[in-house]
Amino acid sequence: MPLLSVILRVMIYLDWASTTPPSPCLLDEYLTTSKEFFANPSSLHREGVKSGELLHKLHMRCATLLKCSAEQLYFTSGGTESNNLVVTSLLKRRDKGRLIISGLEHPSLWEPVQALKNNGWEIKALNPGTDGRISPQKLKKLLDRETKMVIIMAVHNETGVIQPMEELIALIREQEKSMDRAIHIHSDLVQTAGKIPFNLQEWDLDSASFSAHKIQGPRGIGLLYLKKRIQPLYTGGGQEMGIRPGTENLAGAASLTKALEQCDKNIRENLIAAKERMAYLVSELSPMKNCRIIPEDRLVHPDHYSPWILSLALPPLPGEVLVRVMDEAGFAISTGSACSANKKNRTRALEAMGVDQKTAFSSIRVSQGPETTMEEIKSFTANLKEQAAALGQAVYRS
Amino acid sequence: MPLLSVILRVMIYLDWASTTPPSPCLLDEYLTTSKEFFANPSSLHREGVKSGELLHKLHMRCATLLKCSAEQLYFTSGGTESNNLVVTSLLKRRDKGRLIISGLEHPSLWEPVQALKNNGWEIKALNPGTDGRISPQKLKKLLDRETKMVIIMAVHNETGVIQPMEELIALIREQEKSMDRAIHIHSDLVQTAGKIPFNLQEWDLDSASFSAHKIQGPRGIGLLYLKKRIQPLYTGGGQEMGIRPGTENLAGAASLTKALEQCDKNIRENLIAAKERMAYLVSELSPMKNCRIIPEDRLVHPDHYSPWILSLALPPLPGEVLVRVMDEAGFAISTGSACSANKKNRTRALEAMGVDQKTAFSSIRVSQGPETTMEEIKSFTANLKEQAAALGQAVYRS
Repeated sequence: MPLLSVILRVMIYLDWASTTPPSPCLLDEYLTTSKEFFANPSSLHREGVKSGELLHKLHMRCATLLKCSAEQLYFTSGGTESNNLVVTSLLKRRDKGRLIISGLEHPSLWEPVQALKNNGWEIKALNPGTDGRISPQKLKKLLDRETKMVIIMAVHNETGVIQPMEELIALIREQEKSMDRAIHIHSDLVQTAGKIPFNLQEWDLDSASFSAHKIQGPRGIGLLYLKKRIQPLYTGGGQEMGIRPGTENLAGAASLTKALEQCDKNIRENLIAAKERMAYLVSELSPMKNCRIIPEDRLVHPDHYSPWILSLALPPLPGEVLVRVMDEAGFAISTGSACSANKKNRTRALEAMGVDQKTAFSSIRVSQGPETTMEEIKSFTANLKEQAAALGQAVYRS
Repeated sequence: MPLLSVILRVMIYLDWASTTPPSPCLLDEYLTTSKEFFANPSSLHREGVKSGELLHKLHMRCATLLKCSAEQLYFTSGGTESNNLVVTSLLKRRDKGRLIISGLEHPSLWEPVQALKNNGWEIKALNPGTDGRISPQKLKKLLDRETKMVIIMAVHNETGVIQPMEELIALIREQEKSMDRAIHIHSDLVQTAGKIPFNLQEWDLDSASFSAHKIQGPRGIGLLYLKKRIQPLYTGGGQEMGIRPGTENLAGAASLTKALEQCDKNIRENLIAAKERMAYLVSELSPMKNCRIIPEDRLVHPDHYSPWILSLALPPLPGEVLVRVMDEAGFAISTGSACSANKKNRTRALEAMGVDQKTAFSSIRVSQGPETTMEEIKSFTANLKEQAAALGQAVYRS
């Protein structure tokens, strides 16, 4: 790390999958909207009407980007709420049944789904292969006449695994037809939207979750896509067509909309640059002694993984130690997901893809964003090698 | 209305109970925090730790203001979520029972409580007297061994009625002791915090809800006070000690904290000025032909009502017409609450206090804030008289 950075304690931020540095122009959008459209969209007076019109426009703009209709989008407080809303709405359904959930899901889906067990639901965890991908054959075996919902995250927040969504969705829709039973497909798109090209016209989902702060927008705002209305659990003033009550966070919604638009505009060139940096990272780190890229299939099929997220381990070095050491050296990275408060959650997803517990506990996540530079990646790579070597000696000697 | 205002279409905003114009210094706080503390408080690296420390400090500062402990406060997305969280947590309780809810509650309590009926709960609506106040005697009659929860809003969002909270709480606690049964007391303090002096040491509540945007803070952030932990419905990454999952909206929380601090600092002088303006408003409007101050007891006991909110009606003029006419004249006011999407909700609270439906439909709400001036109130009063007279003729002639 350059001496100046050490002195200034400048941090190279490689924890973008956890949250992102806010974009100045998105903060501006937040600020301007806060001031110019402060009135309550439910108010009848002209300021309220103005706010209501903006809210409608924001729905329209998001719908254009995501290729759905404006009435299918609901602003929420973020990905966690969107995910929870879909699952807990099942509590109001009289017809219980089977719910299939991939073993990779975020706690905001995994936890509420486990809680459904007490409510008469049968939960089937669908583990991916060692490459992290859900096998259509495995999924097909689990689909039965009682299956009411399938939950599959499109891009895994810890490893970057990209699921073959089109294939999986098509399979479920086929089964649905043959059994004449509706199956709700939910996908957490928090690590997908703005990062990996997709659209809701090609992906025939029933619901999907989005978050602003993963794409440089503000905290506390997200979206829920619903093909058809569901019965929400939280009720109140009828906002967001009754799906999500509470005075609308208009400034947040405006900033999220702009964030999606900017990502959309730059997604191709951002992806190319990210892939280049990721290729460098993987090619430099994978030959290291004891280094394990997770999953290793990434070395064979780089296109099956998001170039924004890399998971790796240097067993027996605990991930936490590595994170702290790299932090001291001026690099912000993470162990697995930031959202895994307990240890069980921390290694659950990696173990689901067959990673042994020891390696899972050694894992770290390096995640980049559109502002990450090749220089930063090079600096990180060089430092990680250095630190690992130093630590390796200490660890191996004891 | 002054000619210049008409030309510039400058709006005199008297809809503060619906939402408030954001304070520039609170927006600054939001902005600064967004930039300087952008990292995820759950992250292990130094930027994350810094964010985590700020989050802890914000809890502490709010706790000092509200006179409770930091562990009893949870940041949520706002009042609606806080209210819903408390009620829907009852779905996880095995022991059902009776729930007493005042007839004045906001839809974000009223609606989820009604939904509990399908879950084995007995719901008893506790209507206030014609003065809008809950009678301790009436409440006492409803309290029985099966009573598990009582919900009473401290300051009514439509009429400004201030409930005799200390008396009501003391009564419930007495009954609780005599029956050796715990009763959860919840209060929606959205129109109380920062506006009417109170503290959680004097009010022995089990839970309470707060919102930032009603006190010039940002949208999408609020607080939930919980004396003891409850079982939340939404789960995920364990944030806010598991009560409220989702990456913490740190900038929102910082801005809310500062909003509470500023209100606290200025509450006495703000109240004096607000009372003065309100007294003028009431004394000017109440003698008007057909004008009904709601409740009329306000003329006798002005101190039983929040000086920030006034409800009145000019029957048979529909409230909606009056709101639109006043809007044309450059004044933003509202019919009842902005959060009442359907007609039933619109007049529910007023009818609960014995206001006839016709008068309820004629009602308007005038609500002010610390930035409201006597000149604005005078201008509004003069205009309302003028418009009502003009409209009165038209209405009465047909």
